[in-house]
Amino acid sequence: MAKDFQQITLLLDFYGSMLTERQKSFLEYYYEDDLSLAEIAENEGITRQGVRDAIKRAEGQLFQMEERLGLAKRFAEVRKGLDEIDDAAQVIYESNMKTGLSRDINEAVVKIRVIANDLRE
Amino acid sequence: MAKDFQQITLLLDFYGSMLTERQKSFLEYYYEDDLSLAEIAENEGITRQGVRDAIKRAEGQLFQMEERLGLAKRFAEVRKGLDEIDDAAQVIYESNMKTGLSRDINEAVVKIRVIANDLRE
Repeated sequence: MAKDFQQITLLLDFYGSMLTERQKSFLEYYYEDDLSLAEIAENEGITRQGVRDAIKRAEGQLFQMEERLGLAKRFAEVRKGLDEIDDAAQVIYESNMKTGLSRDINEAVVKIRVIANDLRE
Repeated sequence: MAKDFQQITLLLDFYGSMLTERQKSFLEYYYEDDLSLAEIAENEGITRQGVRDAIKRAEGQLFQMEERLGLAKRFAEVRKGLDEIDDAAQVIYESNMKTGLSRDINEAVVKIRVIANDLRE
């Protein structure tokens, strides 16, 4: 079972509240705490295959939610746009430092960058 | 039954794909096409009370999804931030027009505003 950490962690952030507590715990042990299937099985007192099946099922649900709702994709687009805004703000900052030296511009650039970074989280 | 158009329409946009086709249709007739309960009932060949119950139930599901996932709220915050970015870009534009007249700054401002507006949609 190949771990697709980044994708599962992202989907877990968006849709984790739609899983059962147990499903969520298993995914967290496996993807966030990086426990092995055997370790989770031992802690939970079930078989390794049982853990594997539970994780597979929970992952399937996350992917299905994303296929229906597409919110991770939507947020990924927002993040990309915010990166581009941040880059453009950097261009303004540098140009202003070289020539205009406007305090208004400088303050507005800082504001844009702070907001863009807050929204990325 | 008071119609909370804006909220329901927003939630329908986010979570509509999690409803059944029938539930989605009823909400669309009622909120988007602005049909009355009696009109929907007649078109569907069911009672007015049946339509009312179906709509109430579907609305309940939308609110429950939002309570769990909070994505409408999350996007509302993003939109608010993008508005603030757009305002700050406007400040830069005006300041640059008055004093610096830098072409680089102007281009970067346009870029920021285009991206901010694209992301709002």
